[in-house]
Amino acid sequence: MKLLRHGAAGAERPGLLHTDGTIRDLTGIVPDIAGDVLSDAGLSALRDADVASLPVVAADTRLGPCVAGTGKFICIGLNYADHAAESGLAVPPEPVIFMKATSAIVGPNDPIIIPRTSEKTDWEVELGVIIGTRAKYASEADALKHVAGYAVTNDVSERAFQTERAGQWTKGKSCDNFGQLGPWLVTRDEVEDPQNLAMWLKVNGQTMQNGATRTMVYGVAHVISYLSQFMTLHPGDVISTGTPPGVGMGMKPPRYLKPGDVVELGIEGLGQQRQDVIADA
Amino acid sequence: MKLLRHGAAGAERPGLLHTDGTIRDLTGIVPDIAGDVLSDAGLSALRDADVASLPVVAADTRLGPCVAGTGKFICIGLNYADHAAESGLAVPPEPVIFMKATSAIVGPNDPIIIPRTSEKTDWEVELGVIIGTRAKYASEADALKHVAGYAVTNDVSERAFQTERAGQWTKGKSCDNFGQLGPWLVTRDEVEDPQNLAMWLKVNGQTMQNGATRTMVYGVAHVISYLSQFMTLHPGDVISTGTPPGVGMGMKPPRYLKPGDVVELGIEGLGQQRQDVIADA
Repeated sequence: MKLLRHGAAGAERPGLLHTDGTIRDLTGIVPDIAGDVLSDAGLSALRDADVASLPVVAADTRLGPCVAGTGKFICIGLNYADHAAESGLAVPPEPVIFMKATSAIVGPNDPIIIPRTSEKTDWEVELGVIIGTRAKYASEADALKHVAGYAVTNDVSERAFQTERAGQWTKGKSCDNFGQLGPWLVTRDEVEDPQNLAMWLKVNGQTMQNGATRTMVYGVAHVISYLSQFMTLHPGDVISTGTPPGVGMGMKPPRYLKPGDVVELGIEGLGQQRQDVIADA
Repeated sequence: MKLLRHGAAGAERPGLLHTDGTIRDLTGIVPDIAGDVLSDAGLSALRDADVASLPVVAADTRLGPCVAGTGKFICIGLNYADHAAESGLAVPPEPVIFMKATSAIVGPNDPIIIPRTSEKTDWEVELGVIIGTRAKYASEADALKHVAGYAVTNDVSERAFQTERAGQWTKGKSCDNFGQLGPWLVTRDEVEDPQNLAMWLKVNGQTMQNGATRTMVYGVAHVISYLSQFMTLHPGDVISTGTPPGVGMGMKPPRYLKPGDVVELGIEGLGQQRQDVIADA
């Protein structure tokens, strides 16, 4: 299933993408794409819904982030060997983790807002993993059972805030509208191998990132198991698993986003996003 | 007012500490200590409640974290000059910010759980600031108007996870039960000067930290204004403003927590916490 949330920001309703290409409304079927709905039992119940009878949502409806109730937005840093190289950093001996503020999460086609004092706003297409059931001290063998599904994320990053403003990356990762999530949560049964997905990102039509999850250093199962040694993962938590080469920071000279730019990105089987870049008010 | 949440973990109800020393139940008066209740209007409405007529809650009732709906648990690092010195680090040129997972937040007297592989679990008494209204690009002059109130926090920290396990402090800050919050949110009208509060922490009755918020490098108003340049602060967000000297890491030799230890901590006017230290199951 391709689960989504549609409607105005802060007032989204649950929905799904039907096999006929239309968006169907799940209002009244589930309270939201969140919590227990993300468990195997919750997803199984949803699969039994008579989707063809559900109301069609207008195709131009805004999409919100594809999951609600996200308590943690965890990112893995330097998780593609080539990206570490372009950043001038070594592949870490174990996963580097950092947090983005959950208040940064927005819909897949919501604008990238350049903060007032920003000069180095950058892009990062990433495979997002959405947790479906509580995971603590999970083994790598069991880890994927805790996944509800996968989604495209744009881990928008302000490089000066991240690295030139006194320690800890979170400062450059947590700005408003720095976490586009969606268009949909593709349930894990429909993703045969999360470590074999092509991914891409374009700025103004020019391909900047063109990679695949097969070059990820620490794979999804390892990352979930690893994180769960430190903290409990809860339904709705999102793990953004790192970005392949091609970010603006790595270019010579570096290339950062400016108002008027258009960013498009996608991952094989997970859909795509499109963002206008705008200045903050 | 001293606002609190009482009852079993995950099923807390709103309450307050009455001037007669009893805990009164606010069920039916407000949905929770969260969201709009934290605004000036919400707090003002609560002040009009006839508290003496509200049901008394048993004195031995568990207290939960004193606020719900926390989207961000933001910490300021090295924000007391003496603590920076004991950590062997310079005072940063601007605030260092990092995130704790909101899943780490627990009640004031809930145990400190030592993670399975931990050898360096440490304590940090801190002044917690609870945001009452949305703040974005707030000036320092206006910053305190966005505060609902203050509370004691214990920013429990695993030093090996924080500094010896491949980058970014969040790994050592986000473990379950690493963020005791409360006993109550003291509304800002009752805290005359947040930069002049004594604070202390004891382990097994021995005083380890004995400081005051007057030695904070970046004060509360500055920190709120600063953070709001990077991201919107929302009602229920918690900012933990750093710890004074006396953490276990700074001792010669270092002294870390072990099962059976008892940690007590408090801040002038904000109440105190007491935690048993236990091993993870």
